[in-house]
Amino acid sequence: MNPSELIRKKRDGAALSRDELHSFIAAYVDGRIPDYQMSAMLMAVFFRGMETDETAAFTDVMLHSGRVVDLSMIVGAKVDKHSTGGVGDKVSLVLAPMVAACGVCVPMISGRGLGHTGGTLDKLESIPGFRTELDVEEYRRVIGKTGLVMIGQTAEIAPADKRMYALRDVTATVESIPLIAGSIMSKKLAEGIDALVLDVKTGSGAFMPRYDDSLALAQALVAIGSKFGKKTIGLITEMDQPLGFAVGNWCEVVESVDCLRGGKVADLMEVAYALGALMLVAGGKALTVREGLRLCEEAVWSGRAYEKFLELVRAQGGDASFLEHPSRYPRPACTAEVKASCSGYLGAFLTRDIGVLAAEMGAGRMHVDDVIDRKAGITLRKKLGDAVEEGETVALLYADDRGKLERAARGFPSLVMIAPEPVNVGPRCRTVVRTGGEEPWASFSESAV
Amino acid sequence: MNPSELIRKKRDGAALSRDELHSFIAAYVDGRIPDYQMSAMLMAVFFRGMETDETAAFTDVMLHSGRVVDLSMIVGAKVDKHSTGGVGDKVSLVLAPMVAACGVCVPMISGRGLGHTGGTLDKLESIPGFRTELDVEEYRRVIGKTGLVMIGQTAEIAPADKRMYALRDVTATVESIPLIAGSIMSKKLAEGIDALVLDVKTGSGAFMPRYDDSLALAQALVAIGSKFGKKTIGLITEMDQPLGFAVGNWCEVVESVDCLRGGKVADLMEVAYALGALMLVAGGKALTVREGLRLCEEAVWSGRAYEKFLELVRAQGGDASFLEHPSRYPRPACTAEVKASCSGYLGAFLTRDIGVLAAEMGAGRMHVDDVIDRKAGITLRKKLGDAVEEGETVALLYADDRGKLERAARGFPSLVMIAPEPVNVGPRCRTVVRTGGEEPWASFSESAV
Repeated sequence: MNPSELIRKKRDGAALSRDELHSFIAAYVDGRIPDYQMSAMLMAVFFRGMETDETAAFTDVMLHSGRVVDLSMIVGAKVDKHSTGGVGDKVSLVLAPMVAACGVCVPMISGRGLGHTGGTLDKLESIPGFRTELDVEEYRRVIGKTGLVMIGQTAEIAPADKRMYALRDVTATVESIPLIAGSIMSKKLAEGIDALVLDVKTGSGAFMPRYDDSLALAQALVAIGSKFGKKTIGLITEMDQPLGFAVGNWCEVVESVDCLRGGKVADLMEVAYALGALMLVAGGKALTVREGLRLCEEAVWSGRAYEKFLELVRAQGGDASFLEHPSRYPRPACTAEVKASCSGYLGAFLTRDIGVLAAEMGAGRMHVDDVIDRKAGITLRKKLGDAVEEGETVALLYADDRGKLERAARGFPSLVMIAPEPVNVGPRCRTVVRTGGEEPWASFSESAV
Repeated sequence: MNPSELIRKKRDGAALSRDELHSFIAAYVDGRIPDYQMSAMLMAVFFRGMETDETAAFTDVMLHSGRVVDLSMIVGAKVDKHSTGGVGDKVSLVLAPMVAACGVCVPMISGRGLGHTGGTLDKLESIPGFRTELDVEEYRRVIGKTGLVMIGQTAEIAPADKRMYALRDVTATVESIPLIAGSIMSKKLAEGIDALVLDVKTGSGAFMPRYDDSLALAQALVAIGSKFGKKTIGLITEMDQPLGFAVGNWCEVVESVDCLRGGKVADLMEVAYALGALMLVAGGKALTVREGLRLCEEAVWSGRAYEKFLELVRAQGGDASFLEHPSRYPRPACTAEVKASCSGYLGAFLTRDIGVLAAEMGAGRMHVDDVIDRKAGITLRKKLGDAVEEGETVALLYADDRGKLERAARGFPSLVMIAPEPVNVGPRCRTVVRTGGEEPWASFSESAV
């Protein structure tokens, strides 16, 4: 295998074979191919793409660069959800216990926040004592006991992806559908799941804001999942504003608990119920989406979803008393209110920039080694379409670092557009993507399956 | 400056400013930008190209990464020639002394052979004692004394290009017109020249075989030269067969000396006279190409070109007696004859592969650290269009290493096509490329300028 000949082959638009991908990536992982050849290959893939079979082979090579967890000793369907990431996206915290409460196992390996997106692990770790770094044995023990586990990527899972992702981050080769798809799917396929539901975000806060790109990514992910014999279904959801009202870590946990105790936040619960219904159908607990939606709603109303979340928190070492009594949690040192400069209707959010602003306040990371202020965050008082009076509070900002907070408070007003006329706000759930094709969520959720 | 943002910018098709190129390349040279970011940038340039101003700025940054030689103390025009490289391309050995004999200074910095192309330095170093590694002071002394100097790229000349070329070689980013143009021109502009004539090869033995690519490269090179205020003219010449009969090092020196003593080899001299005439016009020694051609021919017929070459060899430490009496040179240990397997006409050479075969026999390098057998080489007995009888010798191969020679002798027949009918062989000099546009050599050489 001549590395530069393989780079040339991809550069000139040919598909690489499974053997070629395997030898290239294996040589990269064990150091025989240096970073500079891998980054040239990644840029060639950025421009030339990959065919479906090639992306599947690429995923397979990354998957088998590490350990593939066997959960076959656990009875019942194991179904996970993956989100391509957004702002205020705390769906996993509501969804995973809700689905587990309905009897489908949820073995979830999540990521940390980087750039404008938050990370489920960072949110969970804002619960005192909560441990996300379980090894594979603990992971199996927790899922076996509670039907639910939420951990971070271990060194054993897809190590090739871990190294390549770090390289992509600094070589402008992140936004490539086959590379994204391979990265996501190699980690998800290592979890030991039977089926996977994908929340592919679109709009101003999404990783790839254009709807066409979101659709192409959803199709690529579904195609790979199917190649590996896993039921895989994608749901394209709107990310033209933060999901829910809270953006941060502890504040998102609090909002999630509120929702688990009564489903109060409309847009968040619209997405959580839809994904939950798809997971229950995929896991064989519901025959139709409508039935799935009903089961999810019952799990919340009955308190079983909330109880399952408390059970998970305790199983992973967290102090659940803070969830029962959030007022006991330490308060951020400083707060600031952002007020509307004119009257009208909330017309648009620069959602991605709100995510960056929250990260810069301390709620996230601009660099992988930034330290997070778990109490820092934003609470929106207004959402898209809401009427706003001049001088009315649009958002509340809070953090321990006064300087960062003041900078954020000065920057926030330019991230919100106030329109003179009311604006239409579309549904959060837009399109279902399956191997057979795509369909609007509205008609799909009404149909028999 | 954020390196990955600059990679992204180029990846997305924007032109980089002079400042951006400067900060990126300067940071690369001093180690703040690692190879893996540079290789991603190079691949992005491969796909997106560069605008003319951008290529000129890129060249300027590489040029000023090192020393720019000042030859202004030397009276008269300084004109160099650069070839994009071919097989049997010994033009520099004939051309440089011929032009210098006509009174135009030729300060030439040449390269070594790599892959299928030979290198002028390797050929010169096959002359016992000849030193190509002069420092800048010696370089100035030799050109001042003989009007001619032929050395290798020193560490002081365009060090950024030196590092980037090595990286391009192993990341499949060589064949990019702006990168090639910047690499060539940054070295040539550092020589202290007033004008430059470019021999851009096209055809089966050229670096880029397609005529359109050769034309685009010639145009890019001419555009950069003009931006830097240097008279720059390109001549696209045919490389559909080795130039002359000899392919190797010492054997090419012998053929060059033969030509300097009488101009016996038609295709080689067609190219040498054309380039010489352009150099004399560019250097102000001839008013028209026709006059330039006449002066070059006179320099050869009169023996002045040959005398100039002997003078150069002595000035750079070489033993000129081997040129006067080539039979004194050591003989290769082994020889092999390749005979025609059928009768017909020589219809085509796989010229690039002949270059590779010669290199594999020891005449060149497949890797930069390969050691050259200066006596190894090929002498063609037949050229394109020649009638061939079955069993007649087509080529003579020679080398010190019997195993390599035998392998080459077995491989050679498949690199020569014998056609049943006579084939047309076009002129070697095809097209003149200037800032104003391009014109066929035939009409250009007949016109007033």
